[in-house]
Amino acid sequence: MPNSYKLLNGRAIAAQIRKDVASEVETLKTEGWPVKLVSISMGDVEASALYVRNQQKAAEKTGIAFEARHYPAEIGRDELLGIIQGLNTDPRVTGIIIQRPTPKHLTERRLQRTVHPLKDVEGMHPSNIGDIVYNDLKMGPCTAVAAVELLKSTGVNLEGLEVTVIGHSAIVGKPIAFLLMAQGATVTVCHHETRNIAMHSRSADAVFVAVGKPGLVTGAMLKPGAVLIDIGINQIDTADGPKVVGDADFESCADVAGWITPVPGGVGPVTVATLLKNSVTAARLQRDHYASEFATRTSA
Amino acid sequence: MPNSYKLLNGRAIAAQIRKDVASEVETLKTEGWPVKLVSISMGDVEASALYVRNQQKAAEKTGIAFEARHYPAEIGRDELLGIIQGLNTDPRVTGIIIQRPTPKHLTERRLQRTVHPLKDVEGMHPSNIGDIVYNDLKMGPCTAVAAVELLKSTGVNLEGLEVTVIGHSAIVGKPIAFLLMAQGATVTVCHHETRNIAMHSRSADAVFVAVGKPGLVTGAMLKPGAVLIDIGINQIDTADGPKVVGDADFESCADVAGWITPVPGGVGPVTVATLLKNSVTAARLQRDHYASEFATRTSA
Repeated sequence: MPNSYKLLNGRAIAAQIRKDVASEVETLKTEGWPVKLVSISMGDVEASALYVRNQQKAAEKTGIAFEARHYPAEIGRDELLGIIQGLNTDPRVTGIIIQRPTPKHLTERRLQRTVHPLKDVEGMHPSNIGDIVYNDLKMGPCTAVAAVELLKSTGVNLEGLEVTVIGHSAIVGKPIAFLLMAQGATVTVCHHETRNIAMHSRSADAVFVAVGKPGLVTGAMLKPGAVLIDIGINQIDTADGPKVVGDADFESCADVAGWITPVPGGVGPVTVATLLKNSVTAARLQRDHYASEFATRTSA
Repeated sequence: MPNSYKLLNGRAIAAQIRKDVASEVETLKTEGWPVKLVSISMGDVEASALYVRNQQKAAEKTGIAFEARHYPAEIGRDELLGIIQGLNTDPRVTGIIIQRPTPKHLTERRLQRTVHPLKDVEGMHPSNIGDIVYNDLKMGPCTAVAAVELLKSTGVNLEGLEVTVIGHSAIVGKPIAFLLMAQGATVTVCHHETRNIAMHSRSADAVFVAVGKPGLVTGAMLKPGAVLIDIGINQIDTADGPKVVGDADFESCADVAGWITPVPGGVGPVTVATLLKNSVTAARLQRDHYASEFATRTSA
């Protein structure tokens, strides 16, 4: 029976981030930099429509303009790249979101790296990822930043913290690893080829899991009192109908963990809030870049 | 007494890489893409002069042209950035090297990110680092790539290999970690804030150390038969005069390790060879980029 664990309330953390965002959006507007996102979906929208509507609602609540565009799956590669380049050079657009999934002939990465790094509010451009490696976080991948934010909200000291990250994707597992290294944590990254994940997770003060497999992490794999950040979002069928669960077996983990994220209501809401925070950062970076370009040069 | 360990001969591996480079340089030349590096040193050259001369000698031996430029420490920031931009747009220059140390008012990173990513033969531009995170290695940081090359030369299977990396710099420790993750290894990155490095290194099949502290790794910290890749280069005083050593205590480590790199003669020579290999890759990428820009577009 769960007794001592504390639930990490993603919705409350997200609400605080959104409040800060709203006030910064207001300031930027008075400085001539209204924040505006353009979302690009391609092909079958069913999969992402609800997700885009949620982003739109969240953005507009904080005063960020949101334009949802949709293009047919058959759109030509050059045409779409031209559209993105047009948005890059449009001063009225401060952020661009490429919705997934993308049609097969338009690889996600090719589109993502066409977005100007200063308008890359999803934090996925290679140069933004590379900046994190250099401990210079501008806009990080939203899910990774959100997961680290949840760990920080526990108040635990990251210096010297032993952390195991399960999952090594380029936009979740790996960025979590170097965001944490930048704060002094000792990080081990496990994945499907790891011989014995439990060996690593059992000695960790904090465990992150982002794999997409319900029940992958059980209480027996945790050190008593550890923080468990569950990034998985899986839909499963139960006797009571479909249900959304994470990658952890919540019951057994809650018995052992000191802190645990619920799914839903954990990393998810903070991820959306992080997208809005990145949107403010993007507008601010564009403002600073503009100012430095148009300032009179004083040096030779 | 060391008995069963095998020495990883960096000089032999480097010779093989240089041989391949020389033949590719020849091919590129016949295609209209002669490979040429420009090295930029600033201020006090004493520290880097020998290093630059070695690069020059190694480059010219493989048919790569090498121009060593030197600017006074007082050079203006805008002037130097303008020079780099000039080299970026000069079709006769296929690679640019920024020598360290740089004067205080010209931060290394600012200079490095002014180099065009396709001419970044040192593999240090954030977008090149970010590409490695995406498992898309174009030009990686030379020392990190060299260290991984030495591990591979043992023939050990990287899938599921347990690796401990000691040192988490942006251009050595961290890139080693994701180069290895891309190959299926389980990687733990330790550093000065790690509580107990030995706990991690003792369970590792391979240990990389890049910290700059002689004697940091001892035999007692290794699992019998492990591969030890020593990236440190430290000058120490001994009764017989100054001596160059790595970060490992060679005697005690050689007793326990299965494979070990000597210092000097291990990672060092392979690092220089990797710079030349990157130079060929850079020229090839520029050739491909040029070709795709000037090809007739067939799609809309």
